[in-house]
Amino acid sequence: MGVNDKEFVKEVTPRSEDFSQWYLDLVLKTELMDYAPVKGCMAIRPYGYAIWENMQRLLDKRIKATGHKNAYFPLFIPESLLQKEAEHVEGFAPEVAMVTHGGNEKLAERLVVRPTSEAIICSMYAKWIQSWRDLPVLINQWCNVVRWEKNTRPFLRTSEFLWQEGHTVHSTDEEAEEETLKMLGVYKDFVENELAVPVISGLKTEKEKFAGALRTYSIEALMADGKALQAGTSHNLGQHFAKVFDIQFLDKDKQLKFAWQTSWGVSTRLIGAVIMVHGDDRGLRLPPQIAPIQVMVVPIITKKKKEEVLDRARNLLSDFGDTLRIEMDDREEYSPGWKFNEWEMKGVPLRLEVGPRDLEQGGVSAVRRDTGEKMFIADGELPLLLPSLLVDIQENLFRQARDFREKNTSRVDSYDQLKETIQEKRGFVRAFWCGEGRCEEEIKNETKATIRCIPFPEGDQETGLCCFCGKQHSKMVYFARAY
Amino acid sequence: MGVNDKEFVKEVTPRSEDFSQWYLDLVLKTELMDYAPVKGCMAIRPYGYAIWENMQRLLDKRIKATGHKNAYFPLFIPESLLQKEAEHVEGFAPEVAMVTHGGNEKLAERLVVRPTSEAIICSMYAKWIQSWRDLPVLINQWCNVVRWEKNTRPFLRTSEFLWQEGHTVHSTDEEAEEETLKMLGVYKDFVENELAVPVISGLKTEKEKFAGALRTYSIEALMADGKALQAGTSHNLGQHFAKVFDIQFLDKDKQLKFAWQTSWGVSTRLIGAVIMVHGDDRGLRLPPQIAPIQVMVVPIITKKKKEEVLDRARNLLSDFGDTLRIEMDDREEYSPGWKFNEWEMKGVPLRLEVGPRDLEQGGVSAVRRDTGEKMFIADGELPLLLPSLLVDIQENLFRQARDFREKNTSRVDSYDQLKETIQEKRGFVRAFWCGEGRCEEEIKNETKATIRCIPFPEGDQETGLCCFCGKQHSKMVYFARAY
Repeated sequence: MGVNDKEFVKEVTPRSEDFSQWYLDLVLKTELMDYAPVKGCMAIRPYGYAIWENMQRLLDKRIKATGHKNAYFPLFIPESLLQKEAEHVEGFAPEVAMVTHGGNEKLAERLVVRPTSEAIICSMYAKWIQSWRDLPVLINQWCNVVRWEKNTRPFLRTSEFLWQEGHTVHSTDEEAEEETLKMLGVYKDFVENELAVPVISGLKTEKEKFAGALRTYSIEALMADGKALQAGTSHNLGQHFAKVFDIQFLDKDKQLKFAWQTSWGVSTRLIGAVIMVHGDDRGLRLPPQIAPIQVMVVPIITKKKKEEVLDRARNLLSDFGDTLRIEMDDREEYSPGWKFNEWEMKGVPLRLEVGPRDLEQGGVSAVRRDTGEKMFIADGELPLLLPSLLVDIQENLFRQARDFREKNTSRVDSYDQLKETIQEKRGFVRAFWCGEGRCEEEIKNETKATIRCIPFPEGDQETGLCCFCGKQHSKMVYFARAY
Repeated sequence: MGVNDKEFVKEVTPRSEDFSQWYLDLVLKTELMDYAPVKGCMAIRPYGYAIWENMQRLLDKRIKATGHKNAYFPLFIPESLLQKEAEHVEGFAPEVAMVTHGGNEKLAERLVVRPTSEAIICSMYAKWIQSWRDLPVLINQWCNVVRWEKNTRPFLRTSEFLWQEGHTVHSTDEEAEEETLKMLGVYKDFVENELAVPVISGLKTEKEKFAGALRTYSIEALMADGKALQAGTSHNLGQHFAKVFDIQFLDKDKQLKFAWQTSWGVSTRLIGAVIMVHGDDRGLRLPPQIAPIQVMVVPIITKKKKEEVLDRARNLLSDFGDTLRIEMDDREEYSPGWKFNEWEMKGVPLRLEVGPRDLEQGGVSAVRRDTGEKMFIADGELPLLLPSLLVDIQENLFRQARDFREKNTSRVDSYDQLKETIQEKRGFVRAFWCGEGRCEEEIKNETKATIRCIPFPEGDQETGLCCFCGKQHSKMVYFARAY
């Protein structure tokens, strides 16, 4: 119908021109989301939600394989419960949505819409846990949470978002620490192997830890604009919540003890990470493991061969529909060129073109989204090649992201170097830091870079002079500007 | 450790003694849920949530197989949006929770916590739909909703509950009606085949329809106490919402037209239906299709044969763990009798006992939860018999429920008979009704029975004299007291 193929892509600002605008254009244009008529809230459209469903399925399997069960706790938290843990309320009170009326009546106590569920879950755990026999409690929930954000950005920071939050209870400190690190490891495995996003894991500083936690660990990813994104957190809560919510158990030694807890979560912000790590000027590049459509078949229809071409395309769907997420675009009102652009923009990992010439030659033309490489595949090779191409694409996306991160990780020895690198090159900057909040704060104020994490030492821990104050025996940490 | 096996079951009031108390005791004692510190809200504990996860999986597959995709829309609805459709706001405004403050500031406009999502979804559809090419829109969402209820009851009526809500848009009246009925059929198929709960489908009266709908259809189930439960609804919304939200499309004939819509939903209340249809004095009886644990292995441990018995039990888990949801209860602090009671109460469809004598005889003892029947199964027969026993149990639960419903469905010809039957026997009562709201209202006021639905005619529709006013050509409807 003569639609101009090139117009399509023009509606998205090229990534190389303006990363931020590219992101905003892309999430709308590819129908991942749309803005809702509530400040800072979004509708996640089917194409975006299908990515989340794939993430949920792959992560839920891991959460269950490590012995956790899902449950569901109330959306509302009585204000007095949220206020029990001092640091927790200080961290979250300024950003909560508050329900004051229910069924046309003013409530006796205001209800907080959960920004996270420690308070409500701990109030239940206090009822459920009496004896060492009741431990460990290993529960996870998938739900929505609300944090009233001033500056919002689709997927990365919205007033309401979807996430999972694990909440576990243990009889010893050691077991809680082990759980905290185990789940951080689960997140790293999930994000690297399913989302093809390489991450650094480590400990958050006191300033950056979760409000109410003893220690927070995180996985940190580097976006293609050189900014970091916290992709998941795992908290050792110590006995902070157990003490104020009175979660006590009678131990084997007949002593009544406060329990040890953890919590950990990842959210729909991971969709933002996937976009910003893998996307390019032509649009999304989705890792096959989480792509809603892994293979898109585009029949190249000419007048003479229409039925034969369509039959072959339909056969591909029936041959591979059970093992791959494969679809066909047989819309008559769009040209093949338009479709190529659309599915490239939507990040489908592999495109198969079936035209009269492919039929004659007994195969299909395949185009990889990650490399743009075009190849002819004979029909007989499809059953082996399609899955292995998808594996290749998944691995290549990870490799490209890791190479990018390595190129954009600098090591600096002085504060001047740190400032310059953050300003000019961005990326992760490794530098020694003494552990003092004052140095951290002053560096942040001047450079807008925060300490993303104190990485787990590989082999012997290297120490040196704090890049800011010069103190000896400082640890190597990762600085970056972050989302 | 000498725990008294019989004490366990005593903590639950027998069903035959007090149905209502039995229900409340059972949902707590089997750890399906617990009361939360927010009025009318509950925590769904892992055992209850696992039932919901199984329901979700089985229904989601059907929703997708009929061409629908999942998405996610915001929790909050600006008050002005809810007010657009006159009947809709009248129905829902009295029972909404209202957010008035966000991030410590008073909001310019109050936000309703969604009681259902027509308003927010229609506001998005108005942006997304321009042309006949954009239709049909077939979207579903799984989420939480809040309705501020005065009288609550676990699973059946809680201030917050979980559900799925489908929202579709079509270009013609006929297509919308077809969709409405198709999804009602999907619900019937799902509830009867997965939950083993037989249902009557039909049309709701004007008085009982969804606030804002043109027509509401429902599936209605009969609980074991003779009260009915609305188990799912499917609404033809006509153009009611399209007109106030301005959902218009340019049709093939170049005319701008208002779209036709449907919505449909089922909720966690279905868990209540399963409990009340199948449960007995000994506790839950869960249909294998949705039971979190289908087979519980209880090793009967004696001093001499401990390791052999445990090994055999573990082998059963590894042999059948891939195809069945099978678990083992090897807790040492509880006696076999205690465990038998516990897993019967928790409704596990099949129990396998492995003791020294079973080992000698080369098999296991199996006990069906639905019939109490005990049988010996030789090891070689397990691979065939276990799955087929579960199918038998599923079918038997359905048959028992259908027989119960048939025995408790009465046909009456006069209002006196109707009153007496509702009072004495309860159950479904079939009677002729003229279609007038006045007759319906007066019957309800006096008998507390409502018209559950106007069933779809089987063959020629039988008509007669209205049981209340005597008007001719009245239709046969189902009356019952309902949850």
